[in-house]
Amino acid sequence: MTSVDRTFGKYLEEIMANIKLFALNGNYPLAEKVAASLNMELSPASVKHFADGEIQIDIDKSIRGADVYVIQSVSDPVNENFMELMIMVDALRRASAHLINVVIPYYGYARADRKARAREPITAKMIANMIEMDGVNRVITVDLHADQVQGFFDIPVDHLRALPLIAHYFIDNKITDNVVAIAPDHSGTKLARKLAEHLGAPLAIVDARPGEQNVGVIGDVAGKTAIIVDDMIDTATRIEESVIALQEAGAKDIYAIATHAVLSAGAATRLSKLPLQKIVVTDTINIPEEKCLPNMVQLSVGELIGNAIDRISKNESIHDLFED
Amino acid sequence: MTSVDRTFGKYLEEIMANIKLFALNGNYPLAEKVAASLNMELSPASVKHFADGEIQIDIDKSIRGADVYVIQSVSDPVNENFMELMIMVDALRRASAHLINVVIPYYGYARADRKARAREPITAKMIANMIEMDGVNRVITVDLHADQVQGFFDIPVDHLRALPLIAHYFIDNKITDNVVAIAPDHSGTKLARKLAEHLGAPLAIVDARPGEQNVGVIGDVAGKTAIIVDDMIDTATRIEESVIALQEAGAKDIYAIATHAVLSAGAATRLSKLPLQKIVVTDTINIPEEKCLPNMVQLSVGELIGNAIDRISKNESIHDLFED
Amino acid sequence: MTSVDRTFGKYLEEIMANIKLFALNGNYPLAEKVAASLNMELSPASVKHFADGEIQIDIDKSIRGADVYVIQSVSDPVNENFMELMIMVDALRRASAHLINVVIPYYGYARADRKARAREPITAKMIANMIEMDGVNRVITVDLHADQVQGFFDIPVDHLRALPLIAHYFIDNKITDNVVAIAPDHSGTKLARKLAEHLGAPLAIVDARPGEQNVGVIGDVAGKTAIIVDDMIDTATRIEESVIALQEAGAKDIYAIATHAVLSAGAATRLSKLPLQKIVVTDTINIPEEKCLPNMVQLSVGELIGNAIDRISKNESIHDLFED
Amino acid sequence: MTSVDRTFGKYLEEIMANIKLFALNGNYPLAEKVAASLNMELSPASVKHFADGEIQIDIDKSIRGADVYVIQSVSDPVNENFMELMIMVDALRRASAHLINVVIPYYGYARADRKARAREPITAKMIANMIEMDGVNRVITVDLHADQVQGFFDIPVDHLRALPLIAHYFIDNKITDNVVAIAPDHSGTKLARKLAEHLGAPLAIVDARPGEQNVGVIGDVAGKTAIIVDDMIDTATRIEESVIALQEAGAKDIYAIATHAVLSAGAATRLSKLPLQKIVVTDTINIPEEKCLPNMVQLSVGELIGNAIDRISKNESIHDLFED
Amino acid sequence: MTSVDRTFGKYLEEIMANIKLFALNGNYPLAEKVAASLNMELSPASVKHFADGEIQIDIDKSIRGADVYVIQSVSDPVNENFMELMIMVDALRRASAHLINVVIPYYGYARADRKARAREPITAKMIANMIEMDGVNRVITVDLHADQVQGFFDIPVDHLRALPLIAHYFIDNKITDNVVAIAPDHSGTKLARKLAEHLGAPLAIVDARPGEQNVGVIGDVAGKTAIIVDDMIDTATRIEESVIALQEAGAKDIYAIATHAVLSAGAATRLSKLPLQKIVVTDTINIPEEKCLPNMVQLSVGELIGNAIDRISKNESIHDLFED
Amino acid sequence: MTSVDRTFGKYLEEIMANIKLFALNGNYPLAEKVAASLNMELSPASVKHFADGEIQIDIDKSIRGADVYVIQSVSDPVNENFMELMIMVDALRRASAHLINVVIPYYGYARADRKARAREPITAKMIANMIEMDGVNRVITVDLHADQVQGFFDIPVDHLRALPLIAHYFIDNKITDNVVAIAPDHSGTKLARKLAEHLGAPLAIVDARPGEQNVGVIGDVAGKTAIIVDDMIDTATRIEESVIALQEAGAKDIYAIATHAVLSAGAATRLSKLPLQKIVVTDTINIPEEKCLPNMVQLSVGELIGNAIDRISKNESIHDLFED
Repeated sequence: MTSVDRTFGKYLEEIMANIKLFALNGNYPLAEKVAASLNMELSPASVKHFADGEIQIDIDKSIRGADVYVIQSVSDPVNENFMELMIMVDALRRASAHLINVVIPYYGYARADRKARAREPITAKMIANMIEMDGVNRVITVDLHADQVQGFFDIPVDHLRALPLIAHYFIDNKITDNVVAIAPDHSGTKLARKLAEHLGAPLAIVDARPGEQNVGVIGDVAGKTAIIVDDMIDTATRIEESVIALQEAGAKDIYAIATHAVLSAGAATRLSKLPLQKIVVTDTINIPEEKCLPNMVQLSVGELIGNAIDRISKNESIHDLFED
Repeated sequence: MTSVDRTFGKYLEEIMANIKLFALNGNYPLAEKVAASLNMELSPASVKHFADGEIQIDIDKSIRGADVYVIQSVSDPVNENFMELMIMVDALRRASAHLINVVIPYYGYARADRKARAREPITAKMIANMIEMDGVNRVITVDLHADQVQGFFDIPVDHLRALPLIAHYFIDNKITDNVVAIAPDHSGTKLARKLAEHLGAPLAIVDARPGEQNVGVIGDVAGKTAIIVDDMIDTATRIEESVIALQEAGAKDIYAIATHAVLSAGAATRLSKLPLQKIVVTDTINIPEEKCLPNMVQLSVGELIGNAIDRISKNESIHDLFED
Repeated sequence: MTSVDRTFGKYLEEIMANIKLFALNGNYPLAEKVAASLNMELSPASVKHFADGEIQIDIDKSIRGADVYVIQSVSDPVNENFMELMIMVDALRRASAHLINVVIPYYGYARADRKARAREPITAKMIANMIEMDGVNRVITVDLHADQVQGFFDIPVDHLRALPLIAHYFIDNKITDNVVAIAPDHSGTKLARKLAEHLGAPLAIVDARPGEQNVGVIGDVAGKTAIIVDDMIDTATRIEESVIALQEAGAKDIYAIATHAVLSAGAATRLSKLPLQKIVVTDTINIPEEKCLPNMVQLSVGELIGNAIDRISKNESIHDLFED
Repeated sequence: MTSVDRTFGKYLEEIMANIKLFALNGNYPLAEKVAASLNMELSPASVKHFADGEIQIDIDKSIRGADVYVIQSVSDPVNENFMELMIMVDALRRASAHLINVVIPYYGYARADRKARAREPITAKMIANMIEMDGVNRVITVDLHADQVQGFFDIPVDHLRALPLIAHYFIDNKITDNVVAIAPDHSGTKLARKLAEHLGAPLAIVDARPGEQNVGVIGDVAGKTAIIVDDMIDTATRIEESVIALQEAGAKDIYAIATHAVLSAGAATRLSKLPLQKIVVTDTINIPEEKCLPNMVQLSVGELIGNAIDRISKNESIHDLFED
Repeated sequence: MTSVDRTFGKYLEEIMANIKLFALNGNYPLAEKVAASLNMELSPASVKHFADGEIQIDIDKSIRGADVYVIQSVSDPVNENFMELMIMVDALRRASAHLINVVIPYYGYARADRKARAREPITAKMIANMIEMDGVNRVITVDLHADQVQGFFDIPVDHLRALPLIAHYFIDNKITDNVVAIAPDHSGTKLARKLAEHLGAPLAIVDARPGEQNVGVIGDVAGKTAIIVDDMIDTATRIEESVIALQEAGAKDIYAIATHAVLSAGAATRLSKLPLQKIVVTDTINIPEEKCLPNMVQLSVGELIGNAIDRISKNESIHDLFED
Repeated sequence: MTSVDRTFGKYLEEIMANIKLFALNGNYPLAEKVAASLNMELSPASVKHFADGEIQIDIDKSIRGADVYVIQSVSDPVNENFMELMIMVDALRRASAHLINVVIPYYGYARADRKARAREPITAKMIANMIEMDGVNRVITVDLHADQVQGFFDIPVDHLRALPLIAHYFIDNKITDNVVAIAPDHSGTKLARKLAEHLGAPLAIVDARPGEQNVGVIGDVAGKTAIIVDDMIDTATRIEESVIALQEAGAKDIYAIATHAVLSAGAATRLSKLPLQKIVVTDTINIPEEKCLPNMVQLSVGELIGNAIDRISKNESIHDLFED
C-alpha cells in the first residue's frame, strides 16, 4: 500500500498549496508568527472601521475552494474583534471558501459560561452559536477558561494547551526545587494541579472568602518558591491578594503564570508593585508596549498553533498538542 | 359576539399588564419617550462594559412569562450596541420571557445589504441571522435603508415610516410652495418621490458620476425651494455635493431631510458650513449635543414607536403606521 | 511550487470529468448553449408532468459524488418550473450528489422582495428558503430584480450581469452618439445609470405618478436617441408609457433594453405597436416564437453562464463576470 | 375545580372568537361547507395568478394574534395549489398570526413517499419539509396514502379518516349482505380489511402482475357483491382491471369506493364504461361537473373537518375522528 | 478522456486507503464479515458500559479526514445499541471525520413508523431525527419495515434488499415447484408478492381478525408448499397462527422466511414446536446460540453490505443492490 | 392596576388547572412526592418495555393544549431512562401539548461534559441537543456536575440546588462545631467551599495523584469533624480514599454528603465498611432497598421541585431556589 501512500502524500501537498491564512486586528503579531512557523504568507485583506463603528472587510484575492484559517483573538476591544471575525467569515462563506477554520487564541467572554445568578446570559454559548451559524467548520483555541466551553460547539474544536510551554520555562530555567504550585482560589485548583504534576511539586490553595478580611493559605508554603497558576490575568487583584497571603504564610520567592494576559483596568500598575520574580504569560493576547513589565516573560504560542494547522491540514493527529 | 369581545378586551388589559420595556445604551432618551407615550416605566437592568470591552447584563426583576420589548438603536458604537442587544436577548430567553420583541429604531450595517464587489460580506443579513438565532420573536424598526432587508428575516418585522412625520413638518410650517424634492443620487429617487407625492411637488435628481468633475442636476430647480431627501446623513458629503450642484442650477432655498442622523466623521462641521435653511431629522439615533446644529430640527419617533407597541400588544393592525 | 501546481491542475481536470449538467423544462435551448460553450453534453433525465400536475423525475445514470449543475429558469409557468427544480434537487441529494449547483437565469417571484403593503408575503425570500432547505450548495443567477435578493441566501450566490453584453450591442452597432439612457420610472434609475456609464451618455427619468394624467420626463431628451433601460419587460405597459412621454418630450429614436423578456399578457402585441428601433433582450427566458417581434434582438447569456461554470468548477475567480 | 373550569370555558369562547378560516383555490366549495358546519364565515383574501404564473395574495384584514386555519387541497393543478398554500402561510407568518393551521384534505404527491427506484425523489417528504420550514404549526389532513407520511412531519398532524363515513353509506343503504371487500392490488389490502371489518365482510385481493396477461382474484367473490376499496381513484385503470377480474371470477354486483377522487387523464370516461353500481367518493377534491357521473356518490368531509377544527381550537381530543 | 480516468482511478484508490470501518456491540460477527468481504480490518475502538449504564467510547487512532463506516444493528438491547451509535458518531464528528456513514443492518423501532392510536409517538422518525442531528452523512440499511422510513431522512439512505438472497436459497435448493407465497397478514402482502414474483409462484393471505376465533386463508394452498414471508420474526405468534391456518387449509410443507430474526420473548421455543421445514433468516441481527434452531438457516448479508460500501466509496451506482 | 391583577390571578388559576404531571420509570417515588407537594395527581400513562428493549408509551387522556411536566431521572439504567423520556416527549409534541417541561432530577452522562482525551465524545452535550431537538420547552434539574452544562442548552434551564437542604441537615442536627469541609479531590473544591460558607467552616482538600501511593490532605483536619462534599457518589472509591487520608491526617468524625446517590458497582459494600457517621444524600436518584445503609440519610428534593413547578407555572421568580 506504500505506492498509494506516496500518491496520497502528493495529494496532501496539493492541499497545503490550497491553504490560506488570514489575520484580523485582534493579534496581528501572533498571526505573523504562525505564518512564519508554517513558512507561509498571510493572505491580504483590508479591514476598515468607519467612524460610527461599522466594519468593512475586503478580501483581495479569490479564495474559491480554499481551506481558510482566520486568526483572531477576541481580546480588547472584545466586541469589535468578535464582529470582525463574524463579518470575515460571512464574506469567506459567500466567496465560496471550501473550509473555514477560525483560530481564536483567546476566546473572549469565556468566563460567561454559566448562569451564576438569576437572569444572567451565557454569553460564551451565544458566541459559540453565532460562530456555528456563520458557517465555521472548525475552531482552534488555546486554554479555554472551562473545558466545557468546547461542548458549547457541535463542530470540531481543537483545544491546544499552553501549560506545557510554561512548565518548560521553569524546567529550562531550573526553577524546580522547593517549588509549590498555588491555586489563587478554590476554582483554580485543577490548573495548579496540572503544573504541580509537571514540576513534581506539591499544591497549595489561597482561600479568599467574600466579606472576610483574612485570606488564608491551605497547604504548606513557608520557605518555598510559590508559583501562582491562573488561566488569565485580568485585573490582577486575585494575584495581588494571593501574593499578600503567600508572603504572610512565609513563601520565599513568588512567580505568577497565566496563558492569557488580559491585563485590563490598572492590572499592569498593580502587578508592577508586587514582589514577583517573574510573570510568565503567552502571546495569545497581544500586549501593548506600555503594559510590558520588566519582569514579564512572554512565551509565544505561534509555533504551537502553526504546528496544529499543519497537522490539521494533513489530517494528522494533534492529540499531543492538547493533552497536557 | 359583543359580550365575548368585551371579555376578550379584559384579556388584552391583562396582556398590557404583562408587558415590560427595557432600554439599552443605544438610545436611552428615545426609549424614555416611548415609555412616556405608553404611560409605562422602563424596567430596570444594569449593563456594564468592562475594561476589555466585555459586556455584562443584569436584569433586576423576574420577567418570566412577560412580553418584553427591548429598545436599542444599533448606532455608534455599532458593534457595542449590537452585542448589548444580543446578550440582553440571550439573558431574556434563558430567564423565560414569553415573547421577545426588539425595537431597533436605527438598524446599523443596513447599507451592507448586498455584494457590491467580489468577496464582500452581506453584514445586514448576518445581523438578521444572529437576531433570529438568538430567539427574537419580532423586530420593530424605522425606515430601513432598503425595504428588502425586511426579507432578511423570517420572523415578523414591523417596519415603521418616519417620512410622513417629516412631510408634516413642511406642511405645518407651510413650506410647500414652489418646492422640488431632490434625490441626492440615482439610487435615492424612490424616497424623494415619496416626499414629492406628500407635498405635491416635482422631482429632480443630482447626478454625480465617479471620476467626473461636474455634478449635474436632472430636472428643473431654478428659483425653487429644494428639499434634499435621504434616509440617513452619514458623512454629509453627498449633501454637500448636492447643495453645490443645486446652487449652480439656481435653486433658491435648500433644505435637507433624513430619518437617521448618523453624523459620523466631520459631518456636523461639514453641514454647519452649508447654506441650508433647515436640516430635519428624527431621533432614531441619539445626537450628542456637540453635533446639534442651530438649524437642525429633530422630530421624535417616540410616539410612533409607542403607538406601534400599543397596537402590537393588543393585536391591532399597524398598517397605517408603515404605509406612507 | 510549480510542480505541485501542475499536479493540482491534473486534479482540476479530474474535477471537470466529474461535472454533470442537467436541464429542466424552464429553458432547454439556453441549457444547450451553456453545454455547448463548455463542450459538454447535458446529462439525461426524464421529467414527466402527470394529468393532475404532479411531477415525476427520473435521473438516468448514477450521479454519486458528482458536482451537478441544474439549469432551470423559473419563468412561465413559474410554479411548475420552480417545483421541477425543487424535486430534481431532492432526487439529486438523495442520490448522493457531491455538490448541487442550481443555475437560475431568471429568478421568478424576484419582484416579491419586500412587504409593499400590509400582510403581503415576501415570496422571493420564501423561494430562497426552500432552495437552501433542499440542500442546494450554490445559486448562479443573472440580473436579480434587486441586488438584496442575494442576501436572502446564506449559501454562495454567483450573480452574473448581462448589461455589459447589451451595452456591447450598442457599441458594436455604433449607436453611441447623442444617446440618452432612460429610466422608465424612479426606481429604475440605478440600472439606467449603469448603461449611461457604459455608453458615456447622460440620464433621464420618466416620472409617472399614480392618478396623474401627464407623464413627465425629468432630464433632456429632445432630439436624442433614447434607450429605455429595464431589468425585465413584463406587460410592457411601462415601456409604452415611457415611449409616449419620450415622444412628447421630443426624443428622436427610441430603443428598449432588458435582461429578462417575461412578455406576459399582451406584451408582444403592445410592443409591436410601439415605434421602437430595437428591443434588445437576452435568452434568460425562452421566448416562444409567436412572441418574437421583427425588431427584437435576443442576445445569449449561454457563454456567460458556461464561462461561470467553468471557472467555478476550477475554483477560479468570476468577479469580472458580475461586476459591471 | 368546577368554578375554575367555568372560567376556563369563557377563555375558550374567546379563543373561538379569535379563529379565522381562509380558503384558497384548491377546494373552495369544501371550505364553505367547513365554515358552515362551524357557523363561521370565511375570512376574505384575494389570490391572483398573473399571466406568467406568479401568485399574489392579499389578506384583507388584520390577523394579528389570530389562530388561522387555511383550507387548501393540493389537487389538480397540484403545484399551483401547493404554492398558493406556501405563499399564504408566508404572508400569515409575517403578518403576526398566532398559530397557523393548514387543512389539506387531499395531500398531493403523497404517493411519492419512498424511493421505489434508484435516484427517485421523495417528494411527499420535501412537501412536508417545506410546510414545516414555512412556519406552519399544525397539519390537518384526510386519509394519507400511507400512514407513515404523518411521520414526515415533526409538528402535530391530525389525520382524519373518511372510511367510517363511506362505510356508513353502505350500512345506511343496507348494502351489507353477501358483500366482499376487494383490495385492487396487494398493497391495498390494509384499507380493504378496514372496510371488511366495518361491514363484517370477508376480503379478496386482485393480483395483477407486471407482464402477465391474466389478472387473478385471490379469495372467493363468486355471486357476491364486491366493493373495490382504494384511497384514491386516479386514472381508474386499476379499478377497470379489477372489475374485469371480478367479473371473470363471478362477482355479482360491483361497487368502487375511494376517499380521494383525483380522476385524472380519462378516468371519468373509463369509469363511465364500467358496470359499477355506485362509485362512492368524498369531496376532499372538488370534482368538476364534467367528471361527475350519474352513478357517482360524493359524501362530504366538511362536517368531519369542521368538527376537528372545533375540538382542536378548544383543546378537546379528536381521537375518535381518526381512529377507524 | 481515458488518461484522466486512469488518474481518477488512482484518486479512488486513495479514497479506499482513507476508509475506516468500526464495529459496535450490536452485531460484531456481521461487521467482521463485512470487513472480510472488503479485505479490510475493523478499526480499534473500545466501548465500555459502566455499572449505571453510561457508555464510554474511546477511538484508539486518529480518524481525521477519514470516511468512516460504523456498523451497528439497533437490535436487543435496542436502546443500549442505539445510544452506542449516537455517542460514537458524536465522538467521530468532534474528532474531525470527513464523512460519517452508519450501517444499520437492523433498524430498531422501525415498526413505530406512524400514529396507530391517539397520542402515540413515531419513534422511528425520532430515531431518524437524532441520527441526522448527530451529523451522520449517510445511512445504509437493510429491508426497512416500511419503505417510507427512508423518507424520514433527508440525507441519502442506501436501502439494501435481502429478499433476492433468500429467494436464491429456494432456487438453489430447488424448492420452487408447487410453491405458494404466504402473507401472514393483510399488511404483509407486498413482500410476499415480491417472493412470489421471484419464484413465479401464486400468493395467498392469512386473514386473522382481532376477536375472531378462526383464522382464514385467502387463496389456494391445499397440497402446496407454503412459504410464509415476513420482514421480521419477533414473537413468532403470527407465524404460529399462520402455520395453524395453513395446515387447516391443507398446505403440505411449510417454510418461514424473514430478513430480521428478532426472536424475542419465547419466539425460539414457539418456533421449535412448529412443523416448519426450514426457517430462513439473515444475520442482520446476531442470533445467540441458544436461539439457533436445527431447522434454522442463517444467510449472511455481510457480502451485500461490503459490496455496497465498496461501491459507495468509489461513487459507483448501487441500484442493483436495492431493487429487488 | 389592582383589578387587572386580580383578573390576571384568575387567569393563573386557569393555568394551574391546565397543568399535567407525568412520571416515567426513572424515579417514580420522587415524582409522587412532587405531585403530593403540589396537591396534584400524576396523569396516567403506560410505559411498556418489550423483550428486545423497544419502549412503547401510551398516554391515556388528551393533553391538547396542556402545560406538561415530565419527571424522569436519567439514572441506572441510564439509556433506557433517557430513551423513555425522549419517546414520551415525541408523543406529547405530536399530541399537541402546549408546553413541554422536563424535570431531570439527575442528569445522567453529566460527567461527559468535555473532551478529556483525544477523540472523546461530549455526551452531555449530545443529550442536550437531543432534548432540544425533540421540542422540549424547558429543563428543570438539580445540581449539575458542572454549571456549564446549563449552557449546553439554548432553552431555559431552571437549575435547582440541593446543597442548602443538606447544609440545613447539619445545622438542624447541630453538627457545626469544629467542622471542616473536605473536597475529595482538586476539582471538587468549589462545592466544598459552598458548604464551608454555609457552615462557617474552613476547607481542606484531598490531593490524590495518579501513580502515587500516598494521598495527602492539604489543610488542617486533625481532631476535627470532616465532611466530605461531592455532587455524586458513584463507585465511592474517591470517598474511600478520602476517608483513609483523613484518618491518617487525624480527623475525628467523618461524614460524607452528595446530592446524587448513583451508588454503582459495589459502592454500597464499600461505603458500609467505612467509619462514616452519616452519609447524607437526596432522592434525585431512587435508591433500591438493598443499597440503603443504616447510616444513610436520604433527604427529599420533592418539595423543592414541587415549589419550582408551582412558581414556574405562575411565572414567579425561582431565583432563591437555585442561588445557594
